[in-house]
Amino acid sequence: MVKRVAVLLSGCGVYDGSEVHEASAVLVHLSRAGAKVQMFAPNVDQMHVVNHIEGKPTEEKRNVLQESARIARGDISDLKSLDISAHDALILPGGFGVAKNLSTWATDGKNCTVQPEVEKAIKSFHKAGKPLGLCCISPVLAAKLLPGCEVTVGHDSECEKYPYAQTACAVKELGCKHVNKNVGEVHIDAKNKLVTCSAFMCNAPLHEIFDEVGIMVGEVLKLA
Amino acid sequence: MVKRVAVLLSGCGVYDGSEVHEASAVLVHLSRAGAKVQMFAPNVDQMHVVNHIEGKPTEEKRNVLQESARIARGDISDLKSLDISAHDALILPGGFGVAKNLSTWATDGKNCTVQPEVEKAIKSFHKAGKPLGLCCISPVLAAKLLPGCEVTVGHDSECEKYPYAQTACAVKELGCKHVNKNVGEVHIDAKNKLVTCSAFMCNAPLHEIFDEVGIMVGEVLKLA
Repeated sequence: MVKRVAVLLSGCGVYDGSEVHEASAVLVHLSRAGAKVQMFAPNVDQMHVVNHIEGKPTEEKRNVLQESARIARGDISDLKSLDISAHDALILPGGFGVAKNLSTWATDGKNCTVQPEVEKAIKSFHKAGKPLGLCCISPVLAAKLLPGCEVTVGHDSECEKYPYAQTACAVKELGCKHVNKNVGEVHIDAKNKLVTCSAFMCNAPLHEIFDEVGIMVGEVLKLA
Repeated sequence: MVKRVAVLLSGCGVYDGSEVHEASAVLVHLSRAGAKVQMFAPNVDQMHVVNHIEGKPTEEKRNVLQESARIARGDISDLKSLDISAHDALILPGGFGVAKNLSTWATDGKNCTVQPEVEKAIKSFHKAGKPLGLCCISPVLAAKLLPGCEVTVGHDSECEKYPYAQTACAVKELGCKHVNKNVGEVHIDAKNKLVTCSAFMCNAPLHEIFDEVGIMVGEVLKLA
């Protein structure tokens, strides 16, 4: 039976939206698995627009749904219209958009709020026993919304390869279990049907991240 | 020996820049092959900015180099600084940015002009006997600049799977040979060291385009 997967984007570009290569990897692997994909994003303003050369915010305004449509080649829907019953799983690629547009994690860390439609989507899939796949910074949304769950965002001690280890610590402070994983590994929380991996939270070559995202997608489809 | 490959981007988003998935596929396959990659884009305004949901231009202004940096995660250089001697090959992913920002093909077809730095780059790699890899609409730049060369942009008769067949006809009108190819196939013009494939000029599933781009990248590296 064809698995129907909703993919939730947060813009287009690692520093203010969805990480382009993680999103593309998710879609390539879903395509290869023959899944039926529908993409969604909230129809809201981005927190800000970052000049990706300088790494600094500009004065521009951009809309999360419109920018996400760049990754979706126009074929994307307002998250407001997401019908949980029409999908077997939900996957969220990473990128700072998750921490800036889908939640306030970038500024508030573990005290963040999650955008209401995003919160509703994650909680509804979880409640319905449908799997969630989250990579990079996205697992923090599960840590925030699903108390006691298990996730990985890479390693919990900082090094050159894992520069964002404090994220793992924040996950633990939320009462969740953080499981250290290396590139190419995913963590499966079977009870909560969560599949997480670090993706670009690890400084790894692009093809290793591509393959890791592929494992995540495969495990999500098995649980679906 | 490690192959050094320059990748030339044209923005970020299929309708006014680089096609995100073609660009990502190029980078994944180069990463897997262990190539040393440097990305470039011209530091110029986009022809226009397209709302990718409506498919219509907006009033916004964006810069090709800055938007390309979204795909490059910030690690990209002004095309002006490209040193041919530091690279073994040049690869151009597709997307309308090629026909709008790197040339005027979108409005002028075979009578187009090519952005001067782009023209210089393509002609210099060709003159130095270094291979070029071009996919989707990018092969029209070779057709315009390298008289008598052989390329593919898919098929030369229109059908649901190949909706842009008139591009192949324009290539022929430029005095070049167009070779029909199906998804998963590339054309190699050994004399001119050109490797071309149709990518999203064909309505194929994303993973088939990903794999096809991988064949293109592999053949470019063999010629380098």
